[in-house]
Amino acid sequence: MAELVEVTDADDPRLADYRDLRDVELRKHLEAEHGLFLAEGEKVVRRAVAAGYAPRSFLMAPRWLDGLADSLAGTDAPCYVMPEALIESVTGFHVHRGALASLERRPLPSVASVLEGARSVLVLEEIVDHTNVGAIFRSGAAMGFDAVLLAPRCADPLYRRSIKVAMGTVFSMPWTRLPDWYDALPTLSSAGFTTVALTLAPDAVPVEDAVAGAARVALVLGSEGHGLSPRWEESADRRAIIPMAPGVDSLNVAAASAVACYVTARR
Amino acid sequence: MAELVEVTDADDPRLADYRDLRDVELRKHLEAEHGLFLAEGEKVVRRAVAAGYAPRSFLMAPRWLDGLADSLAGTDAPCYVMPEALIESVTGFHVHRGALASLERRPLPSVASVLEGARSVLVLEEIVDHTNVGAIFRSGAAMGFDAVLLAPRCADPLYRRSIKVAMGTVFSMPWTRLPDWYDALPTLSSAGFTTVALTLAPDAVPVEDAVAGAARVALVLGSEGHGLSPRWEESADRRAIIPMAPGVDSLNVAAASAVACYVTARR
Repeated sequence: MAELVEVTDADDPRLADYRDLRDVELRKHLEAEHGLFLAEGEKVVRRAVAAGYAPRSFLMAPRWLDGLADSLAGTDAPCYVMPEALIESVTGFHVHRGALASLERRPLPSVASVLEGARSVLVLEEIVDHTNVGAIFRSGAAMGFDAVLLAPRCADPLYRRSIKVAMGTVFSMPWTRLPDWYDALPTLSSAGFTTVALTLAPDAVPVEDAVAGAARVALVLGSEGHGLSPRWEESADRRAIIPMAPGVDSLNVAAASAVACYVTARR
Repeated sequence: MAELVEVTDADDPRLADYRDLRDVELRKHLEAEHGLFLAEGEKVVRRAVAAGYAPRSFLMAPRWLDGLADSLAGTDAPCYVMPEALIESVTGFHVHRGALASLERRPLPSVASVLEGARSVLVLEEIVDHTNVGAIFRSGAAMGFDAVLLAPRCADPLYRRSIKVAMGTVFSMPWTRLPDWYDALPTLSSAGFTTVALTLAPDAVPVEDAVAGAARVALVLGSEGHGLSPRWEESADRRAIIPMAPGVDSLNVAAASAVACYVTARR
């Protein structure tokens, strides 16, 4: 059972994991250095613990203790208890649903283990927005995708905002980083996947046609701004587009990925 | 041609339209009272002016004057020119791509005129998040939907954030408010639309089946949190779901609407 510790001073050094949550750069640095990540909200905290991530500590207002009793039961980590207003002065903003946990990251699995038995996977090249990463995980999970692979420059799925938007599906969906950017797609092709790059390239075919008949599909998404790199666009087996009405630039990457996942799941 | 006015004082009263853009409640009040809305970013400003909205004024850093020369050419409204850093101290945050315009709202068209000739329309009951409203407009436009109808409590498509996320499609897509919430869906049915409510209700059928064979479809979306009201859920002709993998709660409303629009467009 977690040890309940009442804290009355927002400057208490034991709360270091929870400081300045709105400062993305500072958080990235702190979380990488200490190998931690933060979960926010009762449901997300519960899912992180249930997925086997080891809690370093919890921070919550008293009214969340009951609802999270199951998550607190199986750990010796401290649970810092503070009034909601004081929590805000630690984190620097209004905490969504008043419960937080700091948890240990785990070593990332190998690409091979993530791909084992997978039929449909997402490959994200350079999605830099945490909201989009979270939304893509959530849509992929909803559509029954088996795994997500991230290029080195893709944003962190365990960043607080990604986790929240993903509704915790980053805990249940297997994912890892690709060690090699340049040959990532040819390597997937060699492993038996048809790599389908979502793009606005002139030779792109409708995504329905691109995925038709493919036993194993790797759906490849580029950045929000400039799309896929030329290398990835060219080294994919197929280039696909979501057919759009004339005069509209494009869908946003979260909407496009939801549609592409839906179509791929039904191939 | 807009009159260029250099402004050096962030407290200049002529900049009243641009104050405190992050304060949603204050902005709602100010924009309703003065019948204005704000467009942000070169592309969005250009689209607002091109769509025929009358500018009250512009506010931009000098480097945007050339790029927006076409939008400035056709109006007598003043264009306030300020260094980017000073613009930030007016608006209260970093202005995306340094160009803003304040424009006059127009009277909303009648429901009948918006529906004339329409084959596929979106009906939003209570989408309260401006980002989601914008994303739904963008996806609807991309999928060739003809119009959007908003229940009285749906968030404003001309709020700055909605416009930005919609990439200006709120200017090209016909839309209006429904005057009557209670009988909105039966009225649409009488007008020849098959109303298809997206829901997690137990009797919901896959959306592909729900829209199959319908000549005119009104796709009905509820709120981010609790979904559709019982009245709308019951008064729709059909209840539809996007089939999902077991164990996943749901898609977010922007992802769900993108998929549903895609499927409806291909019926």
